[in-house]
Amino acid sequence: MSQSLTVVEYLMQALKEVNINHVFGVPGDFAFPINDAICHDADLAWIGCSNELNASYAADGYARSHGIAALNTTYGPGELSALCGVAGSYAANLPVIFMVGMPSEATMASGKLIHHTLGDGQFDTFANMADAVTATSTVLSLDNAVSEIQRIFEIAVIEKRPVYIGVPEDVAKMEIQGHIPSMNLTVTPSTEELEKEVAYQIALQINLANKPVLIVGEHLRVHNAKESALTVIEQGNLPFATMFADKAFYDETHPNFLGLYDGKVINRPLREYIESSDCVIHLGALMTDFNTGAYSATWPENTITILGNRIEINGQVYNELSLNNIIKELSQLIVACTDTQYPHYIGLVESKHDAKEMITAASLYPRWENFFKENDQIIAETGTISMGLGMAKLPKGASFQNQTLWGSIGWATPAALGAALAKPDQRTILMTGEGSHQLTVQAIGQFARYNQKPIIFVLNNDGYLIERILCEEPKIEYNDVCHWNYTQLPAAFGIKDWYCAKVTTNEELDQALEMASKAETGVYIEVITSDMETPPLAANLAAQLNVARGLPVHVIPTED
Amino acid sequence: MSQSLTVVEYLMQALKEVNINHVFGVPGDFAFPINDAICHDADLAWIGCSNELNASYAADGYARSHGIAALNTTYGPGELSALCGVAGSYAANLPVIFMVGMPSEATMASGKLIHHTLGDGQFDTFANMADAVTATSTVLSLDNAVSEIQRIFEIAVIEKRPVYIGVPEDVAKMEIQGHIPSMNLTVTPSTEELEKEVAYQIALQINLANKPVLIVGEHLRVHNAKESALTVIEQGNLPFATMFADKAFYDETHPNFLGLYDGKVINRPLREYIESSDCVIHLGALMTDFNTGAYSATWPENTITILGNRIEINGQVYNELSLNNIIKELSQLIVACTDTQYPHYIGLVESKHDAKEMITAASLYPRWENFFKENDQIIAETGTISMGLGMAKLPKGASFQNQTLWGSIGWATPAALGAALAKPDQRTILMTGEGSHQLTVQAIGQFARYNQKPIIFVLNNDGYLIERILCEEPKIEYNDVCHWNYTQLPAAFGIKDWYCAKVTTNEELDQALEMASKAETGVYIEVITSDMETPPLAANLAAQLNVARGLPVHVIPTED
Repeated sequence: MSQSLTVVEYLMQALKEVNINHVFGVPGDFAFPINDAICHDADLAWIGCSNELNASYAADGYARSHGIAALNTTYGPGELSALCGVAGSYAANLPVIFMVGMPSEATMASGKLIHHTLGDGQFDTFANMADAVTATSTVLSLDNAVSEIQRIFEIAVIEKRPVYIGVPEDVAKMEIQGHIPSMNLTVTPSTEELEKEVAYQIALQINLANKPVLIVGEHLRVHNAKESALTVIEQGNLPFATMFADKAFYDETHPNFLGLYDGKVINRPLREYIESSDCVIHLGALMTDFNTGAYSATWPENTITILGNRIEINGQVYNELSLNNIIKELSQLIVACTDTQYPHYIGLVESKHDAKEMITAASLYPRWENFFKENDQIIAETGTISMGLGMAKLPKGASFQNQTLWGSIGWATPAALGAALAKPDQRTILMTGEGSHQLTVQAIGQFARYNQKPIIFVLNNDGYLIERILCEEPKIEYNDVCHWNYTQLPAAFGIKDWYCAKVTTNEELDQALEMASKAETGVYIEVITSDMETPPLAANLAAQLNVARGLPVHVIPTED
Repeated sequence: MSQSLTVVEYLMQALKEVNINHVFGVPGDFAFPINDAICHDADLAWIGCSNELNASYAADGYARSHGIAALNTTYGPGELSALCGVAGSYAANLPVIFMVGMPSEATMASGKLIHHTLGDGQFDTFANMADAVTATSTVLSLDNAVSEIQRIFEIAVIEKRPVYIGVPEDVAKMEIQGHIPSMNLTVTPSTEELEKEVAYQIALQINLANKPVLIVGEHLRVHNAKESALTVIEQGNLPFATMFADKAFYDETHPNFLGLYDGKVINRPLREYIESSDCVIHLGALMTDFNTGAYSATWPENTITILGNRIEINGQVYNELSLNNIIKELSQLIVACTDTQYPHYIGLVESKHDAKEMITAASLYPRWENFFKENDQIIAETGTISMGLGMAKLPKGASFQNQTLWGSIGWATPAALGAALAKPDQRTILMTGEGSHQLTVQAIGQFARYNQKPIIFVLNNDGYLIERILCEEPKIEYNDVCHWNYTQLPAAFGIKDWYCAKVTTNEELDQALEMASKAETGVYIEVITSDMETPPLAANLAAQLNVARGLPVHVIPTED
């Protein structure tokens, strides 16, 4: 490439080379050169958000749906306000290109007292803070711009983590001298002999087993092995389960799908099947507290772990293998299993509920399960609502995003905006509790501003329910939240035509769901339940955790 | 003291010893022991906020009005979401006790994959990040709790900066063994000989000068010298000015007050007076970009700087003196100046405006000036609105808070909540642009929840005006914000009885101001102007900055 480019133009080109079409952010004076470059580029859309935290969550949601995302803020207050969201993308292995406009090199060298600083003449403080929650960070200069942009994009794409790029406002406009190489993001690993050997050992164990089970998870995506792992499943006719963070990783209608496993807290038939298996393979799934029913999962003796580059077979650990290569080798070696006597995944079972009765967890979640359609993007907020949906069986092509590890409440509302923009032709369904919704509620207005028509369910159970069931005294005042008139919010945020409803009985819920199904506008439905109305997975998990901590159990665990 | 206390009970006691009555925060599972202790303490009020950023801004506003504040979040997402607000308190020298609930020591030692982490088994990442924007940080253990709480509170009180206290959830409930000393926060510095000498030199210069002028600022408060500096002013009958960040530092009705100085951008009579002075004393004022009219201030040769412990007289620098001691000495040495031929501070001058005409900057700011009453707490958001108010003359006892250095838009709305709770018997007046208001708007609901009746003005000029005048193309899309129906927000956020109005003409504004003056409820007034309607200080500052950066000037500078 030999055309003349400024540093910020080269940065925009790099964004497009990794398939980014939208940039989420809040503008600011040190960031004007970046803001300008985005708006001047016909192939990039500026998505202005109400605040930086919302922008970071929207970028996260976009990365989940689109594979990669970009975020842009100004220096100091702007970037610090986005750190929580960026850290969440780090925890979830999502590549987010985080571009921060900085004061000019001359200003920074002068040590002048300037706005957006701590007043200490230091200009590396915030980049260092961001470095702790990104895969890598850099501050561009004219000299390093080309090599650093290449380096940082490569790390983002390969490690699937956020990266931080500080761009001084003067450097942004400087012209790059000399030859500008194209980005080179192609990784073509070759399979090593050791990988072939290890894959052979794993295949042998699976082929010899009577009841092999795979537990699949997000790190297959991180290592670009999602498709090849599905080939292994289908070629071997192998049953597979997911844990909570990985719900709907593959279609939940897949005939080999066993359902959601979460240790001892839910789904006894699946647990018994897995515990009696003679070969469990952990394939890219993380053993976090909420994935394992608060560490209550027990695995049979013969459990093989394949997570990232770490592979463990019968106590032997390999740390330098490529998961991707191993899985590809496996797909050559697995033979079809003929035993299909495993538990079938049913989903939630709706019992009869009187139409005039108040909505309960038992009447609510099966109705939502029934409401979902093929290819829906479901964004579920951390809390009882995501747990209530955990056991729902989702239609073909439906995706389910939640933030099980980082667990930042408020994430889902802007994340749904990002997901909607990434896939505007699919239904985007936001499922949030009202306490979480309050953190980032101003994102509602942005859906209409950017022509998106989400379906939003706000579960109003009068406070932080997940906290009520986990703390010592459920009714203590800190679990209360401000009482809002939720269905008035879309209009206040400037939306003219959405279908809004507040429902308290099963009948009202059914009517609203029907209206929502037919609506050609955005939809906003507030669902009222009593303040301790808890779905089984949440109740059982809380009981497990509280017993372990010597706290009272506030909601009786249900039959799992 | 010998009663038995747990670590968290001792922490609560320390809060009360430094005169904290309210704790702002968002609860979360690792923070339950702290949340519980606050709610169980009859002398501490839990102020639940809609999100952590808002909580941090509310604590900042409370610290400005009350002297010190406390903030409480959970680990990981909770604390990172508050960092921008904490950094703002750091930049403004406000002591905020930032308490973060952490996982138990056992969990952290185990390195388990647990929620609210990055999944890397590291537990010191976030405390290290907070350390960069606080005066000091600590993680409590049973062994260090007493000494660390004492150390950290002492630093907060003396340095007037935020401090970070991580409290593992198990440590919080452990019982402190042995003797529990009382807090010792009294500092009794003695005046050294050198300080007497330096004070004598300064007094000599002031006493000999024909036109001495003081420029007073916030660091007098930081060093507990606000009252003694006023004694110097009054004893010497000395004229004094403030710069932007320090507006209304003393009563603006004080007969010796000259008005607001901001370099070459505004207030020519004052500038000429100061530039022709034969002795200017900088007394606790910071020479930031927005304080000095983008560094356009010029000072006479004989300028003495007293800032913190750094004192400069005629090129001689002393770094280890106590500002407080110097000022106290000065009050013994200054003799009364008899020349009072300095410019009088007039404030804004209202020219005639047709009642039916659209509101303009020229018609708006003098009306607001006229609306303010004695002892009002005015919280002004960073942007054109704070600059428009800069030249207003405020009544006796009125305070004016803005965030000139850190400049985090969105700060003002929750900061006003904090200020209102700190001084519920004074009128709290929030002045914000609509773009800034969007960042943290959910704080509105909290005013009514906690029985506060603020007067809120939202200046809706259809976008980020300060950015329009500072960037290359004022009408570029990133300066637009989502169009909301602002006056519907209080009702949507659950408020029943506030007086809400939207005004576009001078007549409507006058009526609304009259209603607001009489209202016994909260007040929410949206003021509409055209999108480039800019007050003189903002226009002139932008012109100064844009010329320096080679950018076009979008709003013609007005006569200063």
